[in-house]
Amino acid sequence: MHEQAARLDADDTLADLRARFLLPPDVVYLDGNSLGPLPAAVPAALDDVVRRQWATGLIGSWNAAGWWEAPLRVGDTVGRLIGAAPGQTITGDSTSVQLFTALDAAAALRPDRPLLVTDPGHFPTDRYLADAVARRRDLAVRHVRPGDLPDFLAAEGDRVAVVSYSPVDYRTGELYDMRTLTRAAHDAGALALWDLCHAAGALPLDVDGLGVDLAVGCGYKFLSGGPGAPAFLYVARRHHTTLETPLPGWTGHADPFALADSYTPAPGIARARIGTPPILSLLALEAALTAFDGVDLARLRTKSLSLTGFFLRCADALLTPLGFTPVTPAEPGRRGSQVTLRHAHARGLAVALAEVGVIADMRAPDLLRFGVNALYTSHRDMLTAATRLRDLGEKADYDPAPPTPGPVT
Amino acid sequence: MHEQAARLDADDTLADLRARFLLPPDVVYLDGNSLGPLPAAVPAALDDVVRRQWATGLIGSWNAAGWWEAPLRVGDTVGRLIGAAPGQTITGDSTSVQLFTALDAAAALRPDRPLLVTDPGHFPTDRYLADAVARRRDLAVRHVRPGDLPDFLAAEGDRVAVVSYSPVDYRTGELYDMRTLTRAAHDAGALALWDLCHAAGALPLDVDGLGVDLAVGCGYKFLSGGPGAPAFLYVARRHHTTLETPLPGWTGHADPFALADSYTPAPGIARARIGTPPILSLLALEAALTAFDGVDLARLRTKSLSLTGFFLRCADALLTPLGFTPVTPAEPGRRGSQVTLRHAHARGLAVALAEVGVIADMRAPDLLRFGVNALYTSHRDMLTAATRLRDLGEKADYDPAPPTPGPVT
Repeated sequence: MHEQAARLDADDTLADLRARFLLPPDVVYLDGNSLGPLPAAVPAALDDVVRRQWATGLIGSWNAAGWWEAPLRVGDTVGRLIGAAPGQTITGDSTSVQLFTALDAAAALRPDRPLLVTDPGHFPTDRYLADAVARRRDLAVRHVRPGDLPDFLAAEGDRVAVVSYSPVDYRTGELYDMRTLTRAAHDAGALALWDLCHAAGALPLDVDGLGVDLAVGCGYKFLSGGPGAPAFLYVARRHHTTLETPLPGWTGHADPFALADSYTPAPGIARARIGTPPILSLLALEAALTAFDGVDLARLRTKSLSLTGFFLRCADALLTPLGFTPVTPAEPGRRGSQVTLRHAHARGLAVALAEVGVIADMRAPDLLRFGVNALYTSHRDMLTAATRLRDLGEKADYDPAPPTPGPVT
Repeated sequence: MHEQAARLDADDTLADLRARFLLPPDVVYLDGNSLGPLPAAVPAALDDVVRRQWATGLIGSWNAAGWWEAPLRVGDTVGRLIGAAPGQTITGDSTSVQLFTALDAAAALRPDRPLLVTDPGHFPTDRYLADAVARRRDLAVRHVRPGDLPDFLAAEGDRVAVVSYSPVDYRTGELYDMRTLTRAAHDAGALALWDLCHAAGALPLDVDGLGVDLAVGCGYKFLSGGPGAPAFLYVARRHHTTLETPLPGWTGHADPFALADSYTPAPGIARARIGTPPILSLLALEAALTAFDGVDLARLRTKSLSLTGFFLRCADALLTPLGFTPVTPAEPGRRGSQVTLRHAHARGLAVALAEVGVIADMRAPDLLRFGVNALYTSHRDMLTAATRLRDLGEKADYDPAPPTPGPVT
C-alpha cells in the first residue's frame, strides 16, 4: 500500500495546494468536514481587518473597506463554487437561520401545497427547523428517504410545497443524485431546497444548471472559513421578485439608510439580508475562500475520489479483518468526500486516533467518520490513518467508550 | 471653555481607561454608538483564537478552548453590564435575529393577547420585525410614544401581549424611564421587552431588579465588540421553562450531540441558542468586554453626563447662534449617552467634520449625532468637536448635501 500511496501522490497535480493551509506538523486531519483547518491567507487578512480597517478606518470602513457589500460579494464567491451566477447567493448568519429563511420562503412560494418533505436521515437542525416552519405555516412534514423520493413525488407530489435534502449523507458519506431529485421535485411542481453543508467546496455543483430553487450551506466545513463561519443562502433569480423572507431585518431593506417606517424589500438576493453581519468572521471566510483560487473543482473531485477510493482499499486490506465495516458506497458516483466505517467502539477509537495524530470524528452510536478535503490531503495521509487505526484495532488498548463527546456538525 | 474642559479632565478618575482602546491619534471619535473603536485587548486575543486555537487545536478547540460554551459565557459577561444574574443572557446572531426570537417568544408567552405595542420612533429593524411577528402570530401592532405608554396601557393594557421599546431614542438621545414603563407593562399583565442597543455599556442597567422580561442588544456600539459583533438576548429566569423559540436550531437542543430526531429544548437560556455561532467575532467581543473590567458603571454614567452636559453648554455658547438646535434633553435624567443637534445641513456637516478629525454621524434628514463613550472620551474631545463644528458653521464652506450616505445603526 505504501508504494501505491507514493505513486498516487507523485501523480497528484494538486499537491501544491496544501501550502495554502497552515496545518500542524505530524497531524493527519480528516475532520475538515466538521471544521476546516486554517487557510494561510486568513491571519494577515484578519490582521488588516482589525488593525487597519476597524482601528483606523472606524465607522468609515463600512463603505471604504467594503464591509457593507461583503455579504453579497462573499456570496458571489461562494456562488462560483456551487454553480451559481452572481447575484443569487448571500453570506451571513448561521446555517440554521438560513435554513429557516429558505424553508419558510419556499413554503410561501407554494402557498396552496400542504406538505414539506425531508430526509429522515437529515442533519438534526434541518429536521428541527422543518418541523418549526411546518408548525408556523400549518404544513405537514413527511420523512422520505432520498431513494424513495421520486416514487413518493410521483404519487403525492402535487401536494408538496418543497423538498429539503442534502446531496451527501453526513453520517455515511453517501452521495445522492441532485439532478434526479431536483427534476422529480419540479415534475411534481414542488421546489427543491438543498443543504450543501457537506458538498460545497468538496465537489462540483451546478445549482443554476440543475434549476435548484434554494440552497443553503455552512462556511466552516469544506470552505474552511473558520469556527462558526457565516453560512450562505442561494435563491434562484426567478424567485427573487416574489421572495418573502420571514426575518425582514433593516439591512435587507430597499433603502436601508432612509430608516423608513415600513419594510420594502431590496431588489434581488439582497432582500435576504437580515441584521448587521459579523464582519470579522465574514472577512475571514472571504480570505479562506482564496484557497480555491484557480482550482478546477472537477479535478479536485477526481482527487477526492482517488483519496476515498484508496482509503476504502486500505480498509478492505487492513481494517475489515478487525471488525470495521465500510458504510460509504464503493461506487464513486455515490460517494461524497468522506468515508465512514462502522465499529462498535467508534467513540473510543476516534479519541485514541487523535492521540496518535489522526483526527477523525464519530457519529453515535458506531460510525467513525473520515472527511477528506482534497485541497490538503494526500494518499499517504489516508494510509497513515488506516494503519494507525489498524494498530489500535489490533492492540485494543483504547478506552472503548470515553466519557467526553465532542461537538459535532 | 478650554479652562473648564481642562479642569473637568483633571478631575476625571476614569481617564486612564482610554488606554484600553487603540484610537487613531488626532481623531475625536464620537460615533462609538454606531461602531465602537478597537479595544486594545482584541488583537492579541484574536491572534490566539486564529493561530493557536483554530490552527493548532482544530476541531478539539470546541471543547478545549471553550468555544462551545462561549455564547453562554460571553452572555454572562454582558449580563453583568445590564444587571442580569448569570444564566439568563446569551450572545450570538444579530440583533435582528435576537429581536425576532424575543418578540415571537414573548407573544407565545401571552397567547391570549392580541396586541404588540412599540415605539413609532423605534429603530427600523425593531419595527419591521414587530410587523413580521405580528403577521406571523395574527397580532395587531400599536405604535405608542413612550410618554403615552402608561396611559395607553391603563386603557387597553389587558389586550397587550408585549411592549417593545428602547430606553434611549437612537436619534435624539432622549432617555426614557425603564422602571416606569416596565411597571406599567406589568400592571397591565403584559411583558416588557427592551432593546438595549443604545444603553448597554453606556449606563447602569438593572434588568433583574426592574423585572424586565426580555431584552436584546448589539455587541458593536458601546460594548465595542467590532463590526457586526454578535448580539445578546436576555430572558428572565422565570420564563425559561415555558420559553418557546421560533428557530429551534440544534445547538439549543437539550442533548445536541445525540443528534436526536426531534427537538427537546435545553434547560435555561441555552434553549435560545440557534446555530453554530461565529466564533471569531464572538471571541473578539469577549476580549473587547475586558475594557469594562473593574469599571463602576455608576461612575461611568457620571462621567458620561458630565461630557454630554459640557457639550450642551459648549453648544449653547458656540453653536446655537449658528443655527444648531440641541434636541437632546438638558435634564440629566432624561439624557442617554449622546447629544443630537438639529441643523438643516446635517449630512454635509458630518462629512466635513470627519475631514477635520471629528467623527460623528447624522440621521436623516437633519440630525447631527454625537455619541459619547465615557471609557475613552475627554471633555477636551467634546470641546474640540464643538469648536470645529462652530468653525465649519461660521465658514459654511462645506458641501451641504454630499451624495454618499454611510451605513447607520
